Amino acid sequence: MKATGIVVEYNPLHNGHVYHAQQARKATDADVIIAVMSGNFLQRGEPAFVDKWTRTKMALASGVDIVLELPYRFATANAPLFAQGAIELLDAAGCSAFCFGSEDGNIEPFQNSIRLITSHTDEYEAAVKNAIAEGLSYPMALNRAYKTIQEGQPALSLADLSMPNNILGFHYMQASQSIGSTMEAVTIKRMGAGYHDETLDNEKIASATGIRKSFFGSETLDDVSDFIPVATRDLLIEWQSERKRFGSWESFYPFLRFVILRDGPSQLRGIADVSEGIENLIFRAAQSHDSFQTFMDAVKSKRYTWTRIQRMLTHILTGFTIETRAEMEKPAYLRLLGMTNNGRSFLSGRKKRLNLPLISKVASFSDPSLKMDIAASDIYALALGNGTSDSKIGLDYQIAPIMENHFSSKSFK
Amino acid sequence: MKATGIVVEYNPLHNGHVYHAQQARKATDADVIIAVMSGNFLQRGEPAFVDKWTRTKMALASGVDIVLELPYRFATANAPLFAQGAIELLDAAGCSAFCFGSEDGNIEPFQNSIRLITSHTDEYEAAVKNAIAEGLSYPMALNRAYKTIQEGQPALSLADLSMPNNILGFHYMQASQSIGSTMEAVTIKRMGAGYHDETLDNEKIASATGIRKSFFGSETLDDVSDFIPVATRDLLIEWQSERKRFGSWESFYPFLRFVILRDGPSQLRGIADVSEGIENLIFRAAQSHDSFQTFMDAVKSKRYTWTRIQRMLTHILTGFTIETRAEMEKPAYLRLLGMTNNGRSFLSGRKKRLNLPLISKVASFSDPSLKMDIAASDIYALALGNGTSDSKIGLDYQIAPIMENHFSSKSFK
Repeated sequence: MKATGIVVEYNPLHNGHVYHAQQARKATDADVIIAVMSGNFLQRGEPAFVDKWTRTKMALASGVDIVLELPYRFATANAPLFAQGAIELLDAAGCSAFCFGSEDGNIEPFQNSIRLITSHTDEYEAAVKNAIAEGLSYPMALNRAYKTIQEGQPALSLADLSMPNNILGFHYMQASQSIGSTMEAVTIKRMGAGYHDETLDNEKIASATGIRKSFFGSETLDDVSDFIPVATRDLLIEWQSERKRFGSWESFYPFLRFVILRDGPSQLRGIADVSEGIENLIFRAAQSHDSFQTFMDAVKSKRYTWTRIQRMLTHILTGFTIETRAEMEKPAYLRLLGMTNNGRSFLSGRKKRLNLPLISKVASFSDPSLKMDIAASDIYALALGNGTSDSKIGLDYQIAPIMENHFSSKSFK
Repeated sequence: MKATGIVVEYNPLHNGHVYHAQQARKATDADVIIAVMSGNFLQRGEPAFVDKWTRTKMALASGVDIVLELPYRFATANAPLFAQGAIELLDAAGCSAFCFGSEDGNIEPFQNSIRLITSHTDEYEAAVKNAIAEGLSYPMALNRAYKTIQEGQPALSLADLSMPNNILGFHYMQASQSIGSTMEAVTIKRMGAGYHDETLDNEKIASATGIRKSFFGSETLDDVSDFIPVATRDLLIEWQSERKRFGSWESFYPFLRFVILRDGPSQLRGIADVSEGIENLIFRAAQSHDSFQTFMDAVKSKRYTWTRIQRMLTHILTGFTIETRAEMEKPAYLRLLGMTNNGRSFLSGRKKRLNLPLISKVASFSDPSLKMDIAASDIYALALGNGTSDSKIGLDYQIAPIMENHFSSKSFK
């Protein structure tokens, strides 16, 4: 059986994601689609709209056969590290290809870009360093360095690395190369709304950001129903009726504020990604502001991107220290969140040849990164339930990998 | 002007406390009563029923002229350290006497006990060590050691150190002796309900514990009105109408649980007073229990007293680490929470002769212990307000020392 990997957040899963999974299957003639999915905290430093099990169900209902959890350490990291973690997992899971959505939608410009950078590594890295020293953010610095090394080169078609999905794709390919993976890289053009588009005006396809914004504005799913599969809609309605709240920084802020005031600047300094000096600003802002919006207005500055600040806050919320992070340099396991029957056939054939242990029961495996994933689930649940008995703790121990048989993945082929 | 010191928690202030302040004034012919009062977290490791400013108002309405805050580091410590902090403050504030309530109600047995222990220091300390090595709790160990050195001594009248108020009094006197204070030690007999009595069946005087229990049982102040001064009742009613909740571990548990799950055993090990090994028990109990009561049932054991566990939990809640504690060995300031006109006269006459700086505005003084007191206020307010906009943060910066002129302290003479 041939497996193709994709990297997803599904926050929440919408029609564009269904298209991505379908096209990935088609383009690579895959029998199985394996998604590496972030847990309850995401790459832009935000709590997920709904938890990882609900998003796993969405995935299994929408063309994905196997869902593996991208560990917290990678899921909440910057693009290169996020890509590194995801690609290592897909490679270890036995994928023969990976497929990403991009603005370019054509793999050659990516291959050209990778070759260009590989043949100019020193020059590229020096240019990145310079740009960072000048005060540019990391993505901006990469882009500048990339442009620097293009000068004086024969006119090749190169990937446009100012586009967010192109950047991620580029990092997937770089990561794949760096581990010497034999996976084939494939890209498909993203349809409809761009990543940053926040309105719902594109027919049938809207960004996940737009869908969340629409929901938080109206508190109903009426305006977004056209943009999400029925399974997503049903799962969101179920979530709403059981738990009442959807994950957002605003609803998590009481707990974030509490731990900021509790830890104080001296402890905050030990949290991963908290840059020198910003701990005082964060502490003072938490003293003064009782909403996340006004808190962020006080913390944000030209020096740090919104995303970078949110990542610090995620680590503060979850207590992810520099020390903790140091214990988890590489992905050490494949955490199975769910699978279809088709996915199960693939895994049972592969089980003994996987490059990392496959974890179905977290209690059976001891690892600092897995411990962090479990803690992150509990912290998510407690904050979401506002610390009341609605908070469902220990779900990682209670929920077995989700087996979804209602939807045959064949129907997506 | 002659000042007499008392050490109080007023959780809440009741008729027995009024009696204590009156008798302290009478017995020492004092012009001024100075109370050293715990802040928002108390010696038994509990959040206060109402905050320190409300309790200051109660004090100023009930015969106290000056209220000084006992810093968190001492207020939440074991009896010897609690006493040490309180006595050093009273001495530095210029008291010529201190007066404590005791079961004995007679100072001579205390003096005899102090003399006996002073003349048998080595034997006493060895006996304490032995008893602790045998697994006895600290108070039990002191009591055993004390009994050991009594053997073979001429029959003197000695203080009964199995009684909770006698023990505290004994530690006050020992602390006073250890700093070479010239303050006279005075004791009065506690009236009515014992410290541990939890029912309200004694006429007019009930313990603070009994009053809180009665309140939490009925959610009204009807049953306790006879046992508290009118000022206390009015202040409790005001608190209830403004803030809705009274401080208790049950209401603080969501935040306690959150930080336990966030920190995990490895971080909990760095918290003050968390004994080796118990961090795992605490972590597992927090994973399983969504009420403080069932959580404590899971954590408590013969090895640790309830109070000792609660103190650990207080430090976990407030993030009071071993490192933080190491920065605050001795009281370094007199934090003024409130005063009557009479108290003000005393302080303005003394101001330049006080042994420690008098702090009326916290912004004007920088000290690790003061920072901790401010953090403890914010943490108390956030937990009490459940992290909503009802949480009143930064009150230490906003509230000037309370000037209470409605009640003349003369009327208590």
